[in-house]
Amino acid sequence: MLNLALLGTGGGMPMPDRFLSSVILNYQGRKILIDCGEGTQVSMRILKWGFKSIDIICITHIHGDHIFGLPGLLSTIGNSGRVEPITIIGPKGISDTIKGILALIGYLPYNLYIIENPKLPINFSISSKGSKIENSNGNISISTLELEHSTPCIGYSFYIPRKPKFLIEKAKSNKVPKEIWHRLQNGENVNYKRKTYTPDMVLGEKRKGIKLSFTTDTRPIDTIADFINKSALFICEGTYGDNEDLEKAIKNKHMTFSEAASLAKSGDVDRLLLTHFSPAMDNPEIYIKNATNIFPNTIIGYDGFIDELSF
Amino acid sequence: MLNLALLGTGGGMPMPDRFLSSVILNYQGRKILIDCGEGTQVSMRILKWGFKSIDIICITHIHGDHIFGLPGLLSTIGNSGRVEPITIIGPKGISDTIKGILALIGYLPYNLYIIENPKLPINFSISSKGSKIENSNGNISISTLELEHSTPCIGYSFYIPRKPKFLIEKAKSNKVPKEIWHRLQNGENVNYKRKTYTPDMVLGEKRKGIKLSFTTDTRPIDTIADFINKSALFICEGTYGDNEDLEKAIKNKHMTFSEAASLAKSGDVDRLLLTHFSPAMDNPEIYIKNATNIFPNTIIGYDGFIDELSF
Repeated sequence: MLNLALLGTGGGMPMPDRFLSSVILNYQGRKILIDCGEGTQVSMRILKWGFKSIDIICITHIHGDHIFGLPGLLSTIGNSGRVEPITIIGPKGISDTIKGILALIGYLPYNLYIIENPKLPINFSISSKGSKIENSNGNISISTLELEHSTPCIGYSFYIPRKPKFLIEKAKSNKVPKEIWHRLQNGENVNYKRKTYTPDMVLGEKRKGIKLSFTTDTRPIDTIADFINKSALFICEGTYGDNEDLEKAIKNKHMTFSEAASLAKSGDVDRLLLTHFSPAMDNPEIYIKNATNIFPNTIIGYDGFIDELSF
Repeated sequence: MLNLALLGTGGGMPMPDRFLSSVILNYQGRKILIDCGEGTQVSMRILKWGFKSIDIICITHIHGDHIFGLPGLLSTIGNSGRVEPITIIGPKGISDTIKGILALIGYLPYNLYIIENPKLPINFSISSKGSKIENSNGNISISTLELEHSTPCIGYSFYIPRKPKFLIEKAKSNKVPKEIWHRLQNGENVNYKRKTYTPDMVLGEKRKGIKLSFTTDTRPIDTIADFINKSALFICEGTYGDNEDLEKAIKNKHMTFSEAASLAKSGDVDRLLLTHFSPAMDNPEIYIKNATNIFPNTIIGYDGFIDELSF
């Protein structure tokens, strides 16, 4: 089960009733934060999911409305008693940015591991005790995609694989000794009494995991459909609700609701959650038809929106 | 007339119901901001005094809760259409800090003039059209005082001189030609028809101006009493309300309400306005007696507090 909350749903500037676009994921009690504009830590305080358990911070791009909350948040995490390292993933340039932010902060009681513009998925094993990077396996995999914005920007997808069912009858018929069932169930190949056993000897068919994808800020480029394919939830920027603002969207490298909905349709996702609304758009709800006409299962995000994704 | 508002009254971390300690002054429609923690721009948006007219930013010290709002605020001012320079005054180290912040921001459409740890008062002439630094005169003077905190920290005092009354009878009895009354009234010496006229030939006695002083974060050192002497309003940190927290105040280089009140008394100020409350103190009002027993004219500040100082 993966829980998530929208900490803010605005673009450009933090407003009294709409903070800057940021999402927090809660998996096994550990947290993954996506983007951190000014005020994100205030929204986190309202949410009450805690600061100390943030293990991973994913930054989409180095624009103020997505990073200016980092100095304060990293300091507050430091004051929470955390000493374990935090992994920060971000686009080209993130290392220099974090270096600059650390110079402003002065001192942190934990290390930061920076992964700049990763080309391959990163696997983490996350348990209630903490998170660590794994070479393979792990129980959550984070992939990125280069997007098209006015500065290097990456999208994120999070995948929690689901183990196939353990089939006692299959194990028995394959004459797999009971002593090694558990290890095979965990995906290991096992040599036992001079014979090699493989997981497929005890497991059923592959099962769909949980996929969540996130793209902001960007134009709706072709590669996104594949990247978000079959996501249970696709969180996407919808800077402009009105179709009349298409020219602005093109100029500022953003999207309209219609464009986001078309992506959701091409990506064959279950649900689309719109966020990152222009400060000029007081009430995004009035434009919902522009999305639902194309992709009916669209939700207009709002600060404090909470959701749960299950297998 | 000088208007002011408390944008936040907290120390340490921005809270949902109490933003970080920051004050904005409004003189002739132009703004002076003192300190800028994360979220200050959100409070400014609630106040609706505008962003474009901020001419001067005074920073007390380089701790996150007093500066982490600068990247966002400077960007938002840039988006407001401002092209005129902004003067930033701050303690030792402020130039490097601003350099670091500018590297994070990337681009601003206006210049920043940095004045690091000034030793003498700085005079500004402020009108509805804007502000500029003057060698002498001007209509507002900003003085600083080195305080005692865990990092270099300065206090600020703002003085708006009041012109003496223009006395028609005095001008007539001194046989001052009408043509030069206005220039003398503005404080100029005037040579007119081979004779020198001085302002005292038309003006009455000196009159008290408006003095506002501000000290946070600091221990209550001796030099403060002189610095704040006869202020109409003395805004001072009151990190701890409870007298029992004196040891914490000493250790963390802050003040209790009682200590701030004693300063206000020694400084012979008209009113004391307390701010910069510890996040651990939910309701500072319950400790007001610890201040009013020593200095009755004490106000417990709150976010959105507005005041007006007149001659």
